[in-house]
Amino acid sequence: MSHYQKLVQHAQKIANFNHLAAISGWDQAAVMPSGGNEARSNAMAELSVLLHQLNTQPQLSDWFNEAEQEHLSPLEKASLREMKQRWQHANVLPQDLVQAKSLAGSKCEHAWRTQRKQNDWNGYAKNWQEVVNLSQQEAQIRSEANNSTPYDAMLALYEPGTTTESLDIVFNDVKSWLPNLVDRVIDKQDQECVLQPTGSFSTTSQKSLGLQIMQFLKFDFNHGRLDESVHPFCGGVPTDVRITTRYDENDFIQSLMGTIHETGHARYEQGLPKALAGLPIGEARSMGIHESQSLFFEMQLGRSPEFINHLSRMASQQFNAHQDLAFSTENFRKLYTRVEKGFIRVDADELTYPAHVILRYEIERDLMNGDITFQDVPELWDHKMQAYLGLSTKNNFQNGCMQDIHWTDGAFGYFPSYTLGAMYAAQFMASMRKQVNVSEVIESGDLSLIFAWLDENIWKKASQFSTNELVKQATGETLNAEHFKAHLKSRYL
Amino acid sequence: MSHYQKLVQHAQKIANFNHLAAISGWDQAAVMPSGGNEARSNAMAELSVLLHQLNTQPQLSDWFNEAEQEHLSPLEKASLREMKQRWQHANVLPQDLVQAKSLAGSKCEHAWRTQRKQNDWNGYAKNWQEVVNLSQQEAQIRSEANNSTPYDAMLALYEPGTTTESLDIVFNDVKSWLPNLVDRVIDKQDQECVLQPTGSFSTTSQKSLGLQIMQFLKFDFNHGRLDESVHPFCGGVPTDVRITTRYDENDFIQSLMGTIHETGHARYEQGLPKALAGLPIGEARSMGIHESQSLFFEMQLGRSPEFINHLSRMASQQFNAHQDLAFSTENFRKLYTRVEKGFIRVDADELTYPAHVILRYEIERDLMNGDITFQDVPELWDHKMQAYLGLSTKNNFQNGCMQDIHWTDGAFGYFPSYTLGAMYAAQFMASMRKQVNVSEVIESGDLSLIFAWLDENIWKKASQFSTNELVKQATGETLNAEHFKAHLKSRYL
Repeated sequence: MSHYQKLVQHAQKIANFNHLAAISGWDQAAVMPSGGNEARSNAMAELSVLLHQLNTQPQLSDWFNEAEQEHLSPLEKASLREMKQRWQHANVLPQDLVQAKSLAGSKCEHAWRTQRKQNDWNGYAKNWQEVVNLSQQEAQIRSEANNSTPYDAMLALYEPGTTTESLDIVFNDVKSWLPNLVDRVIDKQDQECVLQPTGSFSTTSQKSLGLQIMQFLKFDFNHGRLDESVHPFCGGVPTDVRITTRYDENDFIQSLMGTIHETGHARYEQGLPKALAGLPIGEARSMGIHESQSLFFEMQLGRSPEFINHLSRMASQQFNAHQDLAFSTENFRKLYTRVEKGFIRVDADELTYPAHVILRYEIERDLMNGDITFQDVPELWDHKMQAYLGLSTKNNFQNGCMQDIHWTDGAFGYFPSYTLGAMYAAQFMASMRKQVNVSEVIESGDLSLIFAWLDENIWKKASQFSTNELVKQATGETLNAEHFKAHLKSRYL
Repeated sequence: MSHYQKLVQHAQKIANFNHLAAISGWDQAAVMPSGGNEARSNAMAELSVLLHQLNTQPQLSDWFNEAEQEHLSPLEKASLREMKQRWQHANVLPQDLVQAKSLAGSKCEHAWRTQRKQNDWNGYAKNWQEVVNLSQQEAQIRSEANNSTPYDAMLALYEPGTTTESLDIVFNDVKSWLPNLVDRVIDKQDQECVLQPTGSFSTTSQKSLGLQIMQFLKFDFNHGRLDESVHPFCGGVPTDVRITTRYDENDFIQSLMGTIHETGHARYEQGLPKALAGLPIGEARSMGIHESQSLFFEMQLGRSPEFINHLSRMASQQFNAHQDLAFSTENFRKLYTRVEKGFIRVDADELTYPAHVILRYEIERDLMNGDITFQDVPELWDHKMQAYLGLSTKNNFQNGCMQDIHWTDGAFGYFPSYTLGAMYAAQFMASMRKQVNVSEVIESGDLSLIFAWLDENIWKKASQFSTNELVKQATGETLNAEHFKAHLKSRYL
């Protein structure tokens, strides 16, 4: 057996255990009774240890060296590249740092759940200081291995190929026009009358509506399910994708769009090529590309006027509300494109969302590069929030720098993916429109041509190409944020 | 660290992986979409390989030798005994035999799913011959290690401590009175008018009723769930017990009792001592004792006149059927104690069930001991079926020796557990009645005293004692089938 083949077998073994981790994780979030949590956490920690052992097995180093000398097809070479990248990410850190960060992260996250409610920055900072410190050490070590800045090395965990240099250019441009655009749109929308659908919308009815829309979006129910969880997510494995949503019986509007968002993630997973299953090259390209698919579904498709026609029709039917003006297409369009300045990223609308992300990006970049310390964060947050959205978070930590879970356990480098995803989604849509009459297709109710484009250009390519190459093949250019800007202007002005 | 402690740590590691196997298995049976099956099976097979490696790690042999020299408390000695027994079961067979049997079993079981429908004995026999042959080899090897007959060595996998010698005495006695008792009861019931509840009983309503009864039986919903599956089972782990049932919208009667049966299994698991979690000594004692708990719930409790009062009341309420004579207590009692001779074990009632088990026991015993060959089975089946229940299965393989899944993959030695469970259940009830006024307690609707007895005498003892010792401590004697006989006569005559 060639060394390349040994690596392939090893990757498939890892994929099998990752499969069990994904299903146990889904179970824990979606169906497990709370009394099962301690034993489950122990079992999953045991599995993490095993996965770490598999990812850091000593002989892998030789296998990679040998495999690189073997005669490989271009596809195999790409596959080797992806396997090696994962191996390097897993092996570059000393084991005691990994453990220390994991412990500090768990401690900080656990306490944060209470501290956030109490707006307790000082309590939080005590734990968080250690998380930041260990993450800086991690970034330093990774930067040496990567020959990059510390923050770029963290970014590479989520967005391989994306650099601070490119992000600064793109995000600085957004900062130059977004605050003004937000103000103009809010002024314009001030005149509008928007009706919130009122009533009690039973979970059963909402679920039924969600399933109809997933069907409409051609979610493959032979390879996936819809369930409920406190924090909606897309989990499971490509052959069995588990998406979740949460229902509020007073408001179906958010949950419905959440289901559409997760369906986008799910269809990407379901569309990954079977022939590459179990290999890193067969996985989704990056967090940003994953988010581009969920946001393509939620923002590009789901909030398009033609799609909103379908939505308002289906919702009127489900809730028997044909006479209710709140269910009119016109009102649905307003509801789903309402812009408001707010403190909370996860509640933000399409237009203000990038401001939240850029703020976090700038802070975590400087934090990882050692240009600021953890103590500078609240003031910087307040300052940037005022600049980008005109809101102050002074002494309001719970709605400021303590609002997100990401940093509590040191996931620095992840936030840019959200806005990269929104930008890629707009760019894909612009490109798709050259080949497909998207509006007509959505209106027809048969979205196959849209999905065929995504499948051909994104899903089936998995991680065969770098993000830049993938985007270039799909759209003729690498990331170009002008499409996003044009999309926002056309939708909101 | 002492060698005993090393063994404890190793056992807990195995328990963690068994946890993941249990949850993935539940998921596969209860919620997984069918398209997910292939990847799931691969993942679970990978986990089986790992578990086999852990159970057969070479250093374990030394650890057991060393641990036996260490100073241990009585509880630790018992724990060591249970760990060693599991280790011996896992290590006695050569790896190629394990693999060959697993392959032959999968092949036979897979083909059986079609062959049974087609009554295709010849096709089945081709695969089954190999399963029997490999199982005989297994029994031979185990018998040498156990210093017992081959069949006793197989029996020890499910019922450690139970022997052919003791079973022959007990089962021969049952054979001497059961056929006649069945005939007398059927004659008596011939006069009765029994009404089958008719109507459509929605899954939602049935589930709601099932949950009420589980609550009544003090199932701990903080450590478990009720779901649906094609074949009802009790799975999961003690901190998170997953029971399943299936619903037939035309008939709630069977499903309801099935839920009570699985709740019995579940409460045993939920009652296992937390302090021994993750160790073999903390697991359920044996298949027979497990079945004694499910049958205690289903037969001793669930079919008692006082419990049936509660059942008919709750069902009348759930289905709004207070005026329906089919829902009367009297009719429910008749429904749940109806005796009929039938071909199919899983459909058999309490009274005829032992006949099905004894038939299988006698055949598998002689098969494993090499006294008969696989070709003798259909004729023996027919012969015994005629003797015990007066039914012929000549050329009716699908309702004869091809009806059960157990033998298709070589699970010889399991069948006696079912009737041992029924006998232990009757013996426990007889003993309990000396301390608890069971009828009054059930009537009161608060069954705590009954569960306290089971907890004290069975659940919390887990595998600390041998089955014989456990039963003796609980009832003052080892297995005594007279209690079962007395119970049947008192209920059915």
